[in-house]
Amino acid sequence: MILAHYGENRLIAGLTRNLVADDSVRIGIGDDCAATGGRRARTWQLLKTDCIVEGVHFLPEAVPRKIGWKSLARPISDIAAMGGLPRHALVTMAISPTVEVRRVREIYAGIKKAADRFGVSIVGGETSRSPGPLFISIALTGIVEASRCVTRSGGRAGDLLYVTGRLGGSARGRHLDFIPRVAEARWLVENFRPHAMMDLSDGLGADLPRLARASGTGFEICEALLPCARGCTPRNAITDGEDYELVFAISARSAKRLEEKWRKKFPKLPLTRIGRLSGNLKFQISNFKFQNGFDHFA
Amino acid sequence: MILAHYGENRLIAGLTRNLVADDSVRIGIGDDCAATGGRRARTWQLLKTDCIVEGVHFLPEAVPRKIGWKSLARPISDIAAMGGLPRHALVTMAISPTVEVRRVREIYAGIKKAADRFGVSIVGGETSRSPGPLFISIALTGIVEASRCVTRSGGRAGDLLYVTGRLGGSARGRHLDFIPRVAEARWLVENFRPHAMMDLSDGLGADLPRLARASGTGFEICEALLPCARGCTPRNAITDGEDYELVFAISARSAKRLEEKWRKKFPKLPLTRIGRLSGNLKFQISNFKFQNGFDHFA
Repeated sequence: MILAHYGENRLIAGLTRNLVADDSVRIGIGDDCAATGGRRARTWQLLKTDCIVEGVHFLPEAVPRKIGWKSLARPISDIAAMGGLPRHALVTMAISPTVEVRRVREIYAGIKKAADRFGVSIVGGETSRSPGPLFISIALTGIVEASRCVTRSGGRAGDLLYVTGRLGGSARGRHLDFIPRVAEARWLVENFRPHAMMDLSDGLGADLPRLARASGTGFEICEALLPCARGCTPRNAITDGEDYELVFAISARSAKRLEEKWRKKFPKLPLTRIGRLSGNLKFQISNFKFQNGFDHFA
Repeated sequence: MILAHYGENRLIAGLTRNLVADDSVRIGIGDDCAATGGRRARTWQLLKTDCIVEGVHFLPEAVPRKIGWKSLARPISDIAAMGGLPRHALVTMAISPTVEVRRVREIYAGIKKAADRFGVSIVGGETSRSPGPLFISIALTGIVEASRCVTRSGGRAGDLLYVTGRLGGSARGRHLDFIPRVAEARWLVENFRPHAMMDLSDGLGADLPRLARASGTGFEICEALLPCARGCTPRNAITDGEDYELVFAISARSAKRLEEKWRKKFPKLPLTRIGRLSGNLKFQISNFKFQNGFDHFA
């Protein structure tokens, strides 16, 4: 069977079965990042890898600096989703020998811009020629206090679900110049105790089920509550993907204080309550028939 | 100008100019691995990324398990070249949707085999579809005592140069199933003080000048001394590449003890003195006109 008919989730589940982790692995495969550190360590290291491929994650005519920005901003977003701060990046590029040197320089300038903005040091990399499309893979380390690290799996039935920003329509341009929510996530874990968190890369309709499954819960969200980007419908907000906003689950007791403090701290960025985690293991989106989200190989 | 006419070394030098590193970076871009850690830390973390591309680093008809093995064995070899032990891997694969699931599973089995053999935990990864050739990028962390970490830049004029194993002819098959010299490198740094070390990926003729330049020295090696693989000439040993053997520079005073102890410890793996670092900044290979080695974009 070929990959297109098999499905990405099933493939990954098969590949990563029976992996052996040594005793320094605190969080392994299946979350936004892995975390390593001693059992009693107060600080963990986060590890993440991410790639973008020409023709899949960006069009050949995209502005080169934005391609570079996106390539690093994506894994930064994953570090943020664990409550961490990004640190060291390794940049791998596979490039056709016929590509203009200027284009590569511009892409790299975009990577550096994101690195500078978020305090990342680029410490290594690899370039290879490739007969195929431009390919950028970035491995990123981060750091987080063990007590503040947030996974996908800590959500509890009854937790309220929040998303940052506005969802949908990212393909019109935002997917190339989005701002990873590092500051917001750090503020959140320093001032509250979100039970579960992740960043929205494949769309709420694909990502929220992952958080709920990992937490052993269902969820109920309401279309009418979704913070849609300009010109977008709730359906866009659910299925478009590449929002790179945070979704998190937090105790209902924190709701009032969270919403008040958020408005003062981040007056320009909406924080929206979209529903809650439920105990019945169902994925319910009212006024919307749930479908499996984005599948990389479909 | 396009990359093919520009040259890989020049490209990388340009891209990595003016990179800012935070104060946790002990060794940045330009060595086999980066190293991070506090200024007074006794242990450093090593960071490495490496990629292989179908049609460049392996042929489409290569045995899938060997493709997987190679993809992880390469960065393991770099960790070894710093004197370190590999620890945590992140595996990124870009795959055409038309690839057979079985092929991907076999490749991953090869990655796992290398991981198990060298004590590496696979802690994360990423799969993406790609319209292009199969692409595997692996980021690997390692660990090394600060006092035992060996760079390319510590070589001194007069140091003797040694290589492990036999060189040349790797394309006939060894490039897919080579054994990274982790045990040998660890034994070396635990028992001796090599001044400089690296692994041979692009061939002695391309890699040794890198070590010499980093060390601010020249070198003199002798063709007749080179340990050639079966059926190979000294020219093969110098230019073929993908040997993944160690080359290191060590004080002449250590020579006798090193050679004796090596023979006892690793009786099956030759260790060969091939020449020395020189103070005159010339790269001299007697009986061989030196040429620039392998260039990824040429």
